[in-house]
Amino acid sequence: MEKNNAGIDIGGTNLRCGILGEGGTVKSRLSVSFPKSLNEAEKQVDFIIGNVKQFLSANEKYGVKSIGVGIAGQIDDKTGSVLFSPNLNWHEVPLKYILEKETGLDVYIANDLTAITFGEWKFGSGKGEDNIICIFVGTGIGSGIIIDGSLYSGCSNASGEIGHITIVSGGRKCTCGNYGCLEAYAGGLGIANIAKERAAADINGFKNIINAAGGGIDGISAETVADAYKAGDKKAAELIRETGVYLSDGVISAINLLNPCVIILGGGVIDGIPGLYDTVKNEVGKRALKASISKLRILKSGLGGEAGIIGAAGLAAMHAMHCL
Amino acid sequence: MEKNNAGIDIGGTNLRCGILGEGGTVKSRLSVSFPKSLNEAEKQVDFIIGNVKQFLSANEKYGVKSIGVGIAGQIDDKTGSVLFSPNLNWHEVPLKYILEKETGLDVYIANDLTAITFGEWKFGSGKGEDNIICIFVGTGIGSGIIIDGSLYSGCSNASGEIGHITIVSGGRKCTCGNYGCLEAYAGGLGIANIAKERAAADINGFKNIINAAGGGIDGISAETVADAYKAGDKKAAELIRETGVYLSDGVISAINLLNPCVIILGGGVIDGIPGLYDTVKNEVGKRALKASISKLRILKSGLGGEAGIIGAAGLAAMHAMHCL
Repeated sequence: MEKNNAGIDIGGTNLRCGILGEGGTVKSRLSVSFPKSLNEAEKQVDFIIGNVKQFLSANEKYGVKSIGVGIAGQIDDKTGSVLFSPNLNWHEVPLKYILEKETGLDVYIANDLTAITFGEWKFGSGKGEDNIICIFVGTGIGSGIIIDGSLYSGCSNASGEIGHITIVSGGRKCTCGNYGCLEAYAGGLGIANIAKERAAADINGFKNIINAAGGGIDGISAETVADAYKAGDKKAAELIRETGVYLSDGVISAINLLNPCVIILGGGVIDGIPGLYDTVKNEVGKRALKASISKLRILKSGLGGEAGIIGAAGLAAMHAMHCL
Repeated sequence: MEKNNAGIDIGGTNLRCGILGEGGTVKSRLSVSFPKSLNEAEKQVDFIIGNVKQFLSANEKYGVKSIGVGIAGQIDDKTGSVLFSPNLNWHEVPLKYILEKETGLDVYIANDLTAITFGEWKFGSGKGEDNIICIFVGTGIGSGIIIDGSLYSGCSNASGEIGHITIVSGGRKCTCGNYGCLEAYAGGLGIANIAKERAAADINGFKNIINAAGGGIDGISAETVADAYKAGDKKAAELIRETGVYLSDGVISAINLLNPCVIILGGGVIDGIPGLYDTVKNEVGKRALKASISKLRILKSGLGGEAGIIGAAGLAAMHAMHCL
């Protein structure tokens, strides 16, 4: 029987599982949405356990030896507990303990961006590189950092929160409580909030965006802005151009501070909004310190939506000392 | 005869030399100002050579084995050449080659903040710590980074440029060519520029600051703002309060991105403006991510103005494999 590692990606809306194959391939996969009725941590954990067990038994032939989990939130790296997950509203959930008890397998819990970054580093766009910042833009913005050939987790396992660097001093209020954070301007939620405010003040000018959102301002999201933009809407184009500049402010800050060899850009907002990646590349070339970009490459995610599964399984393999 | 290491700190206005003693002490020191007539790299290098040779021969009894140099600018870590030093307007100066030829000693060249950070890490406020960001605020703002117990130099030896992270998107033009950089707001030059602009628009309101500057707007500097503040001037107090918030924006950004264990704050602006350190401490406590500061300590520089000499000598000792 083969010896394999499974990866689990717990997002705010979806649960995804996969078996890591050779060279970063995924052999078998499962993707399910959290039912909206599951609004308590206990029920969500039960839902996760049920699906993971089903996935494992459907893939018994792969002989899964360990499970890696990537989840948005702060992880206690000693205990594998989820200290706080804002998306799921979890507080102090002993996820490693629960999953090990339920599956009988070794379980390793990581922050979602840590898992993604590990995946991109070992199997994706960062392969063979020693100094990487991997930035994913979705509802929020997060990053993972490889420094001198090691995953850098920080003093309390909380590094990489690039979404919460200040790009507009005293600016828009962020979900974290601070003001002017990068993700309040260039994350999916930030883009949607800015579009909603502007649409409310200029319903006629924003009619294409409002129509793309089904006719109501409340329905506006980063996706509907992207849809209006693709259909040629000028207000959407203006907003997306600004988003690109804001995102570049954050990326340039990280480049000037850390002088990485590679920046990897990924996530739903990067994948879903055409031109955003090119804007960042251009702005970095124009505005970052010349000394900081002399060897820099800016790349798109190589693993896309499966980076989380692949990276989590890879981390589990590394920590359980099973071969990668 | 003893075996010692010398440190040289080449600033924009002063040249300082010292012999590193045990535990980060300085046994003998020399500080001279660059004559203003020396406005070419060649003449400045001659001035440096002359003074270093004199310093070494006056301290012959210490048996100096190697020399470390800290200089503001970008260093080629392979050749020890100064690729570019904005303060001195040096381009491609082979400083290591020249100093080794002239002194017959091993010479190690480092960026000034790299030297300072190494000094603070080995002998100052960062002693025993593995994850440190050491931020010095003078005319500009720079930092050095210790990651997991190693000095982090980046992909092209250019890491730590915290002065050039964006805190005001599209804001004040910075000397680097970009807009909205931290040092354009909270560095000594930035503070002076903001004060000059405000004074020009409100001569009466700024009369105390103008008086502290000798009666002319052109004479306003961060020091004269600090002097007016200490004498109770309200406009100066307002400006310094804002400076503290801007500086905090940058420090918080670095904390959220890198989750260090220790932040060290030093340099002329921190030492010269009362309350700035406390403002940063308070703002970080209020506005940084809770997960990022759970183990964080914010400390003042332990070595003060001698951090550069001590760190440069320490780096030389480490690289020449002489005992520290």
